[in-house]
Amino acid sequence: MSEYIDHDQHGTTVGPVEKQFFTFAGKEDPFLLESGAEIHPVTLAYETCGTLNADRSNAVLILHALSGDSHVAGYYTPEDPKPGWWDIMVGPGKGIDTDKYFVICTNILGSCMGSTGPASINPETGIPYGTDFPLITIGDMVRAQKILVDHLGIQKLLAVVGGSVGGMQVLEWCVRYPDHVASAVALATTCRHSALAIAFNEVARQSIMADPHWCNGHYYGKAKPGMGLAIARMIGHITYLSDESMRLKFGRRLQNKSALSFEFGAEFQVESYLQYQGRKFIERFDANSFLYITKAADYFDLAREHGKGSLVKSFSKCLARFLVVSYTSDWLYPTYQSREMVTAMKKNNLDVSFCEIEAQWGHDAFLLPNDKLNHLMTGFLRRVSHESAPV
Amino acid sequence: MSEYIDHDQHGTTVGPVEKQFFTFAGKEDPFLLESGAEIHPVTLAYETCGTLNADRSNAVLILHALSGDSHVAGYYTPEDPKPGWWDIMVGPGKGIDTDKYFVICTNILGSCMGSTGPASINPETGIPYGTDFPLITIGDMVRAQKILVDHLGIQKLLAVVGGSVGGMQVLEWCVRYPDHVASAVALATTCRHSALAIAFNEVARQSIMADPHWCNGHYYGKAKPGMGLAIARMIGHITYLSDESMRLKFGRRLQNKSALSFEFGAEFQVESYLQYQGRKFIERFDANSFLYITKAADYFDLAREHGKGSLVKSFSKCLARFLVVSYTSDWLYPTYQSREMVTAMKKNNLDVSFCEIEAQWGHDAFLLPNDKLNHLMTGFLRRVSHESAPV
Repeated sequence: MSEYIDHDQHGTTVGPVEKQFFTFAGKEDPFLLESGAEIHPVTLAYETCGTLNADRSNAVLILHALSGDSHVAGYYTPEDPKPGWWDIMVGPGKGIDTDKYFVICTNILGSCMGSTGPASINPETGIPYGTDFPLITIGDMVRAQKILVDHLGIQKLLAVVGGSVGGMQVLEWCVRYPDHVASAVALATTCRHSALAIAFNEVARQSIMADPHWCNGHYYGKAKPGMGLAIARMIGHITYLSDESMRLKFGRRLQNKSALSFEFGAEFQVESYLQYQGRKFIERFDANSFLYITKAADYFDLAREHGKGSLVKSFSKCLARFLVVSYTSDWLYPTYQSREMVTAMKKNNLDVSFCEIEAQWGHDAFLLPNDKLNHLMTGFLRRVSHESAPV
Repeated sequence: MSEYIDHDQHGTTVGPVEKQFFTFAGKEDPFLLESGAEIHPVTLAYETCGTLNADRSNAVLILHALSGDSHVAGYYTPEDPKPGWWDIMVGPGKGIDTDKYFVICTNILGSCMGSTGPASINPETGIPYGTDFPLITIGDMVRAQKILVDHLGIQKLLAVVGGSVGGMQVLEWCVRYPDHVASAVALATTCRHSALAIAFNEVARQSIMADPHWCNGHYYGKAKPGMGLAIARMIGHITYLSDESMRLKFGRRLQNKSALSFEFGAEFQVESYLQYQGRKFIERFDANSFLYITKAADYFDLAREHGKGSLVKSFSKCLARFLVVSYTSDWLYPTYQSREMVTAMKKNNLDVSFCEIEAQWGHDAFLLPNDKLNHLMTGFLRRVSHESAPV
């Protein structure tokens, strides 16, 4: 997803939140990955807001996208200039109402925002894994999350919610742990990464790996492959927008100039914007994590993993109620891909609500303020909350 | 445009063709560019097929796209494994019938296929220009072509024909030299580069300029910025295809394997294909030319250059008959952009035929065999040929 929107947020937010860490898997009981590789220890960074109710039935697990983190809502300190990445959706009285629900958000395995990933220390060598870190899958991310949820004493999640790569985790949760998920909200996502999406990810990875500072992934403590990562981010960024949104936001407007410069460099506003996004990303994200998480997304194919090639079959044990949302201008995970999953769910007689939201902002739309989504989310969670209540 | 299609071409082609060179502009009469810079000498590589008729009224100028060259049709020698890039369209009895028309195709200014560009020797220094080559525009390319056409003794072209960046040159010809163009065929093109198209070009340029071998553009005689150029090409390539064509051509099929490798590298067929296209491109194209030509495309804005911001006004002196063709799955220059130019032409009471061709192959469709396009081309050229005949 793109850089989270800048909030000029005067609405209510959750009280101060704190990043917490949960560590599991030791040398004797390592975490087995789908590749067959093993890692230990595994740490997941996570944050919670709201209060878990007595029967532990109000937990909502939020799953973040490619470059997200556990800081989903609220501020760490009163001085914090920016709230969490989905503060417009998560908080008291908001779409995911923290007065009602206990929200958990955990940084994914493979990331660099507190959870174990390629920048973590390899206990075998005492230095960061780099590319000795084994490849991971969306399934691995979700299996690690399940261990955390167990640790929190939650037998069944009221809802799993996420967009983009987070939406893939939502689908994986429902299919892998049917008895532990009452409902699911899958936004702007897909059941399998398309050739187009793989292509963009691969070119972005090539860009990182072509950076002379990448050093085959062992660059920690040295210069970072910043330019490669910035270009990778710029490529990604274009896919998060749309022809229409770029025309409206930038058009052919020049940066600080009225005439063409006849020089290379950021001359059009769209060029300057992309370069800025690239630079900002270098400061906060690890290039290797970008490689690992995009590869996990490329590997994602629910039908192959869980349905022997049949998407319908992959949902056969699933019990969750679904809200599936796509956006008209999202060309990375276009609506037809959401329709495919909805069709497969319906063939399994699952309870599915589907909505294609009219939006010009491309894939990024799922992160932007949208009354329609808020309304859908509120209604869906209220309904599943009532229907899932113990009798 | 993408790597030209592999021909298994047993149809008739033009006889052996020969690359020719025309040089103009000396130290005393340099070629003045739109930027205000001057260059000399200027060489254009060009090829011709067919025969110029007695009254010199059957000349068709074909304008190539980003990475094309003057070798539009036929073979250089009988042993030549591949014909010119548009051999399916240009030849005896073909859409552009060389039994009827005298076809000229010239490598654009700024390219590296025989015409003057950044790899040419700078007469001031005796070494290649590199990035001391001044920035050029689509207008500059066309003005150089006009000098060649004059040199060939052709007062009025029967038609100018081109797609993509070649289509931009078509539009520029008609607007800049209204008295010298009887008709024009603009395929899969635009009157102004969109923010989306600029964004992709800029990221591709960044990739070249981030290559440590780029050396600020002065890499001639040393290692080439191959990886940067390959990545730039891969980015471009994705934009030439479509979600549908990539799904049909590659889907999620693996390269030589039945199971995931859990390693980085070209594992999906689409990854392998893009890497192959990137590598092939390095062998035949100059990275600096890629920078200069993409920048010229980004600068292209007919309304700004010729209509004081009004597209309608920019066609006000235009006299040519037009055939405008777009393709349903072309998301780089989508149909709405062709419709915009058609509307502006019609407001000037120009004779315009417009067709949106149903095609799943994205922007590349204009280079692929298509009966509909052949039919349109044949009919259009026959009509303008009759209507333009001297009475």
